Amino acid sequence: MSTPFTMPGQGSLTGLRVIEISTSVAAPFGGQILGDLGAEVIKIERHAGDDTRKWAPPSWNGESIAFMSFNRNKKSVVLDYKDAEGKKVLEDLIAGADVLIQNLRPGALAKAGFTWEHVHALNPRLIYCEMSGYGHTGPRAMQPAYDPLLQAFSGIVSMTGDDGGSPARVPVSLLDMGTGMWMALSVFEALRRRDTTGEGCHVQNSLLQTALTWITSPLIGAAAGNPPPKRLGSGFRGVVPYGAFPTADGHVFISAGNDHIWRRLLGAIEATDLDEREGFSTNPERNLRRAEVIQALSERTSRFTLAEIVPRLIEAKVPHSPVNTVDKVYADEQVKAIGMMQPLPHPAVEDLEVVNLPMTFNGEYPTLATTPPELGQDTVAVLESLGRTSEQIDRLLADNVVAQAPDEVPAVRA
Amino acid sequence: MSTPFTMPGQGSLTGLRVIEISTSVAAPFGGQILGDLGAEVIKIERHAGDDTRKWAPPSWNGESIAFMSFNRNKKSVVLDYKDAEGKKVLEDLIAGADVLIQNLRPGALAKAGFTWEHVHALNPRLIYCEMSGYGHTGPRAMQPAYDPLLQAFSGIVSMTGDDGGSPARVPVSLLDMGTGMWMALSVFEALRRRDTTGEGCHVQNSLLQTALTWITSPLIGAAAGNPPPKRLGSGFRGVVPYGAFPTADGHVFISAGNDHIWRRLLGAIEATDLDEREGFSTNPERNLRRAEVIQALSERTSRFTLAEIVPRLIEAKVPHSPVNTVDKVYADEQVKAIGMMQPLPHPAVEDLEVVNLPMTFNGEYPTLATTPPELGQDTVAVLESLGRTSEQIDRLLADNVVAQAPDEVPAVRA
Repeated sequence: MSTPFTMPGQGSLTGLRVIEISTSVAAPFGGQILGDLGAEVIKIERHAGDDTRKWAPPSWNGESIAFMSFNRNKKSVVLDYKDAEGKKVLEDLIAGADVLIQNLRPGALAKAGFTWEHVHALNPRLIYCEMSGYGHTGPRAMQPAYDPLLQAFSGIVSMTGDDGGSPARVPVSLLDMGTGMWMALSVFEALRRRDTTGEGCHVQNSLLQTALTWITSPLIGAAAGNPPPKRLGSGFRGVVPYGAFPTADGHVFISAGNDHIWRRLLGAIEATDLDEREGFSTNPERNLRRAEVIQALSERTSRFTLAEIVPRLIEAKVPHSPVNTVDKVYADEQVKAIGMMQPLPHPAVEDLEVVNLPMTFNGEYPTLATTPPELGQDTVAVLESLGRTSEQIDRLLADNVVAQAPDEVPAVRA
Repeated sequence: MSTPFTMPGQGSLTGLRVIEISTSVAAPFGGQILGDLGAEVIKIERHAGDDTRKWAPPSWNGESIAFMSFNRNKKSVVLDYKDAEGKKVLEDLIAGADVLIQNLRPGALAKAGFTWEHVHALNPRLIYCEMSGYGHTGPRAMQPAYDPLLQAFSGIVSMTGDDGGSPARVPVSLLDMGTGMWMALSVFEALRRRDTTGEGCHVQNSLLQTALTWITSPLIGAAAGNPPPKRLGSGFRGVVPYGAFPTADGHVFISAGNDHIWRRLLGAIEATDLDEREGFSTNPERNLRRAEVIQALSERTSRFTLAEIVPRLIEAKVPHSPVNTVDKVYADEQVKAIGMMQPLPHPAVEDLEVVNLPMTFNGEYPTLATTPPELGQDTVAVLESLGRTSEQIDRLLADNVVAQAPDEVPAVRA
C-alpha cells in the first residue's frame, strides 16, 4: 500500500495503515511514533475507551493528560470485535493494513480469533506486533504486568533510592514507553524485510525484555559473578562527589570526575580546607568515605543559594546542573529554544501543547497532523472506507457493535 | 550499497555501512542496534580508545563490561583524522558509507572539517546523525553533557526518591541508551526517505530531547499549569498501596489498584483489621493518609518472609512482584526462558554472555555475529578495503596516524 511521499518533512510511513488495539501506555506510545512518522493509525477501542482516557487527574480542562500524551496523529474507532459482525469489520481492517499492534492481556486477542496464523492468512503482508509483560514463553508468559511491577521484578527498583533507605521506583514509564520505542523500531525493521521478501512478520516485544536491556551492564556483571549494584541515591559508582547536593533553596547536581575538578569545586565554594581532611584528597580515597565526604560537602553547599552557587561553578568549570522541577524545565530557555513542545489545539484544550518526537531531519521535527481523538470520532468514516453502506453502519451502531463519539451517540456501552 | 539479504533471520541493514565516531554509551548503543540488525559498523576510535574500554571495574577477566555491553557486531579502527592523511582516510570511508553517527563534544567533528555540508558533498546519499547533550540550538547548545547531569536538568532527579529524603538518580542510562534508540529509529526513518528521494539527511538527536520525551505527561501537566510531581519513593500517584513493602528478608512490590484487591491483600496477610481503621477502607481516603497506610501495612508485611508472603499473594490474586536484585534476575527461570542472554565468546572472556535486542521476528532474535572488538583490530583490513597499499598502510602505522590491535603494534599513542 506504499505511496511515495512528496511533501518536505513528511514521514516515510505515509501511505501505510496501522491498526492499534491497545490501552494504557506501551502500545499507544509505539503507535504514536508510527503516526508521527506518517502512518495512518487506526486505534480500535472498546466502548469504555482506552483506560488512560479516565486517568485524570492529572488533567487539562478535564481531558486526561495521559491519553493526550500518547494518542495524537491517530483515528479512534469503537468496535466490539467479539461480536460476529464486529469480528468481520476487524478482519476487513486487517486485510487492508500494513501493521497490527496490540498490548492486550496475553492470549486475549487470540481468544477472539485473531491468532498470528489467522491474521497472516487474512493478509500475508501484515506485520503483527504483539506486546506482553513477561515475554511470550516461560512460566510467567500468561501473566499480565505493569511497568512498576516489572521494574521490581527486573532489579531496577532494587537499585533505585538511597542506600540507607527503601528501594524506589523510577518515576518515568521507562518500560512501557521503552517497549513502545522497541516496537516502533521492530516495525521499521520488519518493513525493510518485507521490502525484500514481500512477506509480513510476527514481531514480539515485552516489558521484561525492555527492562533487561536497560540493565545490560549489571546483567553482564551478574553473568561474570559480580555482586549486584548497591543503591547510591543520586550518586554514581566509582566517583565521589557525583550527585545532588543541597543548597539553601534547592539541590544542585555536581560531577567532580577527577581530582582537578574536586579542587576547583572546593575553591568555588570556599571549602579548600576539605581537601586537607584525611582521605579526602583523591577519588579512590573519597570512594571509601563516600558518606562522610557527601555529608561534609553538603554542609558547605548548603551555605549558598542556587543563584549564588551556580555562577561559582560555571566560573570554576565544574560540571553541574540545577536539580530542576518540571515547571522550571517547562519554562527553561534551552527547552524553549529546541522547540520540542509544540502547540496542537484540541477541541476541549485550545492551548494544548505536546512533546514532539526527539528527532529532527534537516532541522525539521516530524509533523503533528491531528490532535488526540475523541472516543469513536472516526468510526463511521473508517466503516465507510471499508465499503459498509449507511444502512449497514446504522445497524452496527444500533446493535452497539460499534459506537461514535459520545455527542453523536445516545447510549454508550459501559 | 544495499544488497538483498537471503539468510532467514538476517537483519535488514545487511549491506549497509555505518561509520561510528563515538565514545561512552549513547552513540555506541545506537550503533550496536544498527549492527545487530545487519549493518557493517566501523567504529573509529582515537589511539586511547573509547572511554568505556577503561571503565573497569566492573569488569570480567579484566575486560570492561561497559565496553562489552555496547560494542558487539562492530569493527574497530584506530584513526587520527586530525592528521591530513588520516582525514583523507575518513573522507574515503564517508564517501562509501550509508550512515555516519557521532556523539563527540559539540562542534568537535566540525572543527576537524567534517561539517554536514562537507560530508553531504562527499556523499549526497549519506545519513549523518549528530548527537548532543542539550540539542543543536539555544544557549546551552555548545555545552557537553552527561546522562546524570541531564537527568537533573530535565526534572527526572527531582521526581526520584523518597518524599522525605533527597532526590535520587535513575540508576540506568535512560538518557544515553534512550538517545541511542531514538538515533537508530531516526536512521530507519531516514533510510526510508532515501529510498524515495535518493538523498541523505542530517539527523539530530540529543539527551535533552530524549529526557523531555520520558517526562511527556508531567511536561504537558506543566503546560496546563499543574504543580510538578512529588517524589513518592516506590509509590504511585493516586493509588495506595502501590509500591515496595518490607518483608523479613527483602522487599515485595504490591499493587492494590482497587478496594477489592486491597481487601484481598489484607486477608492474605492476616491484617483485615486495617480495613476498619478510620480512613483506610477506600482508595481516595488512603491517598490522603498515604504515609500512615504505608507504615501500618509495612509493619504487617514485615511479619512474613518473602517465601511465605508470595504464595499468599498469588492465592489472593494480588498483583505483586519480588523486588529482585540483579543476581536473582540473572538466575530467574522466566529470564532464562525468554532467551535474552546469549553467549558471545570473547578472546579474553570465553563465557561472555550479552543481552540481545529486545525483539524477535517470527520467534528469532537478531543475530550476534561478532564479539566486541579489540582496539584497532580491523584497522588494516578496513584500509585495504579502501584500496590503500601495504606500503601506504605501513607508512600510516609508522606515523601513528592509524594503529592496530595492541599486540600487533609496539607503541600506542596515549
